[in-house]
Amino acid sequence: MDPHLPLAAATSTSDVILDLFLVLLAAKIGDEVFKRIGQPAIVGEILAGVLVGPSLLGLVELGDVLEVFAELGVIFLLFWVGLETRVSEMRAVGRTALSVGVIGVVLPFAGGLALALGLGEATGTAVFLGAALAATSVGITSAVLIELGLIRTRAARTLLGAAIVDDILALILVAVATGVAAEGGLDPVELLVVVGLALGFVAFFALGGTRAMARRPQLLKEPRFSESPLLPAVILCLGVAVLAAQIGLAAIIGAFLAGLMVAETKEQHPIEDEVAPLYAFFPPFFFVAIGIQLDLGALLDWGTLALLAAVTVVAAATKLVGAWIGARKMKPDERRLVAIGMIPRGEVGIIVAGIGAIAGVIDEQLFAVIVAMSILTTLVVPPLLRRMQGQSLA
Amino acid sequence: MDPHLPLAAATSTSDVILDLFLVLLAAKIGDEVFKRIGQPAIVGEILAGVLVGPSLLGLVELGDVLEVFAELGVIFLLFWVGLETRVSEMRAVGRTALSVGVIGVVLPFAGGLALALGLGEATGTAVFLGAALAATSVGITSAVLIELGLIRTRAARTLLGAAIVDDILALILVAVATGVAAEGGLDPVELLVVVGLALGFVAFFALGGTRAMARRPQLLKEPRFSESPLLPAVILCLGVAVLAAQIGLAAIIGAFLAGLMVAETKEQHPIEDEVAPLYAFFPPFFFVAIGIQLDLGALLDWGTLALLAAVTVVAAATKLVGAWIGARKMKPDERRLVAIGMIPRGEVGIIVAGIGAIAGVIDEQLFAVIVAMSILTTLVVPPLLRRMQGQSLA
Repeated sequence: MDPHLPLAAATSTSDVILDLFLVLLAAKIGDEVFKRIGQPAIVGEILAGVLVGPSLLGLVELGDVLEVFAELGVIFLLFWVGLETRVSEMRAVGRTALSVGVIGVVLPFAGGLALALGLGEATGTAVFLGAALAATSVGITSAVLIELGLIRTRAARTLLGAAIVDDILALILVAVATGVAAEGGLDPVELLVVVGLALGFVAFFALGGTRAMARRPQLLKEPRFSESPLLPAVILCLGVAVLAAQIGLAAIIGAFLAGLMVAETKEQHPIEDEVAPLYAFFPPFFFVAIGIQLDLGALLDWGTLALLAAVTVVAAATKLVGAWIGARKMKPDERRLVAIGMIPRGEVGIIVAGIGAIAGVIDEQLFAVIVAMSILTTLVVPPLLRRMQGQSLA
Repeated sequence: MDPHLPLAAATSTSDVILDLFLVLLAAKIGDEVFKRIGQPAIVGEILAGVLVGPSLLGLVELGDVLEVFAELGVIFLLFWVGLETRVSEMRAVGRTALSVGVIGVVLPFAGGLALALGLGEATGTAVFLGAALAATSVGITSAVLIELGLIRTRAARTLLGAAIVDDILALILVAVATGVAAEGGLDPVELLVVVGLALGFVAFFALGGTRAMARRPQLLKEPRFSESPLLPAVILCLGVAVLAAQIGLAAIIGAFLAGLMVAETKEQHPIEDEVAPLYAFFPPFFFVAIGIQLDLGALLDWGTLALLAAVTVVAAATKLVGAWIGARKMKPDERRLVAIGMIPRGEVGIIVAGIGAIAGVIDEQLFAVIVAMSILTTLVVPPLLRRMQGQSLA
């Protein structure tokens, strides 16, 4: 045992808790300010992150611990969304969600690919830019839908379903892009395994898991012992999220599936009241962390800003049009909500860009651009969705 | 910006969340098993930590992130205890608490000092062993009192008050011990500043803070904007905890004081219901982390085991007798509860030993012994308190 660990750990623990305190405080202030000026709270939280992050005040950096809190933030966010959703409702929108997800990935991927090739980038780089533009950030969209009281609408369920399809497709694209970047080409067997695992995972929990829970809700709560089903539910959430991450899916897909499962026991337990405080505590770390990652310094020349504008416009327009086409069978209001709701890229684009950076095909400038594009597509959507709030969407 | 950060971070984030999942799962299993055999749940959680930690299964190590979750665990634990306590009730037990705290520190310190000197250790080492034996782990005791439904009794309030006195004295002892170990002696002015800051801090929040909250509960909840006072309350908790850590007190003292302040607004807000899930989620990390720190391998020779037995007996007996004398004006039942409740050393002894290790006066063997002593004094108390549960303590 290293005798130097304890105090060092104690000191850094206290520093980290100071950071967590600053992040929560900044989030709350951004939140209140934006509510007062009639804007969505999460936009205030993201901008609070830009303010306290290295780009401006430099109060907080994105360390290991804050990364974990941010990840738990989006995990509990999607768990909450799952709790608000019934699997039967998801099945009812299945076909439309599939269509929105597929077309909403194909167009942005093609757009990113074409833009990069047009700018003279190598194929590897172009494939990665396409992949970074492909996946929607369901976390952002969900948070806005919750804030606007729209999370239980049919359009919201379609968005969620499309985002899951979307994530599976993004996983495939990243596998393809990594193969292309490695120049060894792509092993089709490996790709089939990746796809099969992802589909099997979603089907297993969405169908088998929810059915098991509906039949035996006491799986979650052994009434003789547990006072509350909260810890079993949270353990299930983290377990399925970790499993999703292990097979290469986003952890939040697992969290959403766990939420769907627990939702099937809702008649028995007031689980939402108990999860609500975790949902209040963790997600601000996610939104502030997105803002903290913005590197304003790397963007401050005209060439980079022009590239950012081009990438952002391509990202927003292709996703909007793709989802709009995919949702062609929905009512106009719902169709508009779904198309706009798919625009935010948030954390997913940033992670894909990071993988490309490690593969050596995304340079520093393009990385900063993709982060900024993720934030811009994230910032424009809440006000747009909010303006639709008055309309009938249920 | 380092383009290698994102994926590395994403990978380690997923690994860390796996660790958090394993810790929660182990805690819950330990919890259920111990409830089934009629033992206190937290003992099950600590032993679950020993089981999954490096000593046995080696599934989880105490990394930076788990340290932070453990610290937040004991912070929310003490915040919860503060919420259950009114400052007027604390004042009513003030004198007894002071007496229990002071005598309950003097005897263990003297005992540890004498034992080490008797074994031929240097003065610096002896002072540190005394200091490591001085401070009670109010976290453990509080958790057991909550589990047994005794947290609102007069005896529990006395214990809490004594533990605060105790922590201030331990802070002074560590300052003295560090001065002795540095051989430069001790600067009396510096010591006065440390003591003055600690006393001023506690007085400021316990008296001024609670009064301000009682008069203006809307400080916590701006009714036009916040749906819930949870985040403001949590931000206050973390802020006062960080401040306590900055001046050298335990962060949990700050969390307790913040809880006392928020408790003054209870008529206005159902804050306990909202904090309860955070209290359910975080503290298991604290208890499991205590178990993880046990280094069984370093204890497995007869000399070390004999030393461990001696240190543990001295630690338990001196604290029991000291608190017993200090509580001489209480009713016999209460007196017994207070004396037993002061025994656990938990995290405080481990932190003090770590400081001594850095100062170079606590070697590896003695460090492992102090960790094991902390756990042993922690494990014996819950069953003893539990046996008193049937008796009248209110």
